[in-house]
Amino acid sequence: MADEVVLLDFWPSPFGMRVRIALAEKGIEYEGREENLSNKSSLLLKMNPVNKQIPVLIHNGKPISESLIIVQYIDEVWSHESPLLPSDPYQRANARFWADYIDKKIYSTGKLVWGTSGEVQEQAKNELRDSFKLLEGELGDKIYFGGDKFGLVDVALIPFYSWFYTLETAGNFSIIEEFPRLVTWAKRCMQRESVSKSIPDQYKIYDFLLELKKKIQLQ
Amino acid sequence: MADEVVLLDFWPSPFGMRVRIALAEKGIEYEGREENLSNKSSLLLKMNPVNKQIPVLIHNGKPISESLIIVQYIDEVWSHESPLLPSDPYQRANARFWADYIDKKIYSTGKLVWGTSGEVQEQAKNELRDSFKLLEGELGDKIYFGGDKFGLVDVALIPFYSWFYTLETAGNFSIIEEFPRLVTWAKRCMQRESVSKSIPDQYKIYDFLLELKKKIQLQ
Repeated sequence: MADEVVLLDFWPSPFGMRVRIALAEKGIEYEGREENLSNKSSLLLKMNPVNKQIPVLIHNGKPISESLIIVQYIDEVWSHESPLLPSDPYQRANARFWADYIDKKIYSTGKLVWGTSGEVQEQAKNELRDSFKLLEGELGDKIYFGGDKFGLVDVALIPFYSWFYTLETAGNFSIIEEFPRLVTWAKRCMQRESVSKSIPDQYKIYDFLLELKKKIQLQ
Repeated sequence: MADEVVLLDFWPSPFGMRVRIALAEKGIEYEGREENLSNKSSLLLKMNPVNKQIPVLIHNGKPISESLIIVQYIDEVWSHESPLLPSDPYQRANARFWADYIDKKIYSTGKLVWGTSGEVQEQAKNELRDSFKLLEGELGDKIYFGGDKFGLVDVALIPFYSWFYTLETAGNFSIIEEFPRLVTWAKRCMQRESVSKSIPDQYKIYDFLLELKKKIQLQ
């Protein structure tokens, strides 16, 4: 029986992008279903009743939620092609640590940079700078975060490249000037078809986030 | 060469307890070093420069941080004994999902239940009830969260059993009356030596949290 793979997704979601990249890296065919987050489908509510969030991967009828858990699941099931986690336990733990760090920091501080102003924004910008600096330090002179091979940490972080133009414009700073190595890494990732076809254009994301900002009040 | 295993720990930390339980399940000998969190050791700052938090497992000189990542690392390195994650990828993803859920919910809402009062406390209590209800639903009639075998989700949740007396006293509700299956599960876990020797007495935790509450202002 051929695998039936469905992804409940929303195009500007960095978490959805992670799953799209992992599926593309493995060459898995799937049906992407776009969700309307202000009117979630009954399928989404049924498949992720706890968090009611995308992305949800439905593999032969069985749902998996939380982007990093989905990426690890994909890596374990389709293990013969393009491993995303290293085989060494210590390197695996290190990859999980940085993916978790990105998960906890970048979305929330980035959101405050584009979604707020004044002191809150300034503080978030400084926190985001600290995170980018740490991540640049971890990247060092390596090609990808895990070394020579594109892997979990790259998958976790690269979707936020689509936020860079928005962050720079809203925060009035230059990521490429302050973090040139991070931008070089991002452009290297973007040369992979799995990434470039999974991540929307930065200007399209800018327009989307600008509209979103009008609708929601962040603080 | 024999493995050198050091755990930077703090006795009332539920996150430290998780690692203690995993090490005990595997029968690993280690040196536990108690940290003073108001005056962290230079070793802790060196070994976990990003988060500066315990627990940190130092295995043959190499540090691993974040309790759930440490538990998975232990399971992968000492894989011959008492597996904590199932071998099936879907069941692994499910275990990771619930461990992550516990990680995100129970500590933060529990802390508000014992550390605040009034409306904030009331809301946290209701959230904690919702979480316990969900977890009871996931447990169902199984012996442990993963089925017949003690595993990752049990390791993630059982340390909070040491908070139960504090939660009940501060929140003025009865966990055993409202969530009898959860308490039965907890008592079953406590029959394992790996758990009972790793988790402090509920009254000792109560005294500790009462002192802590005087020092910190939660809201």
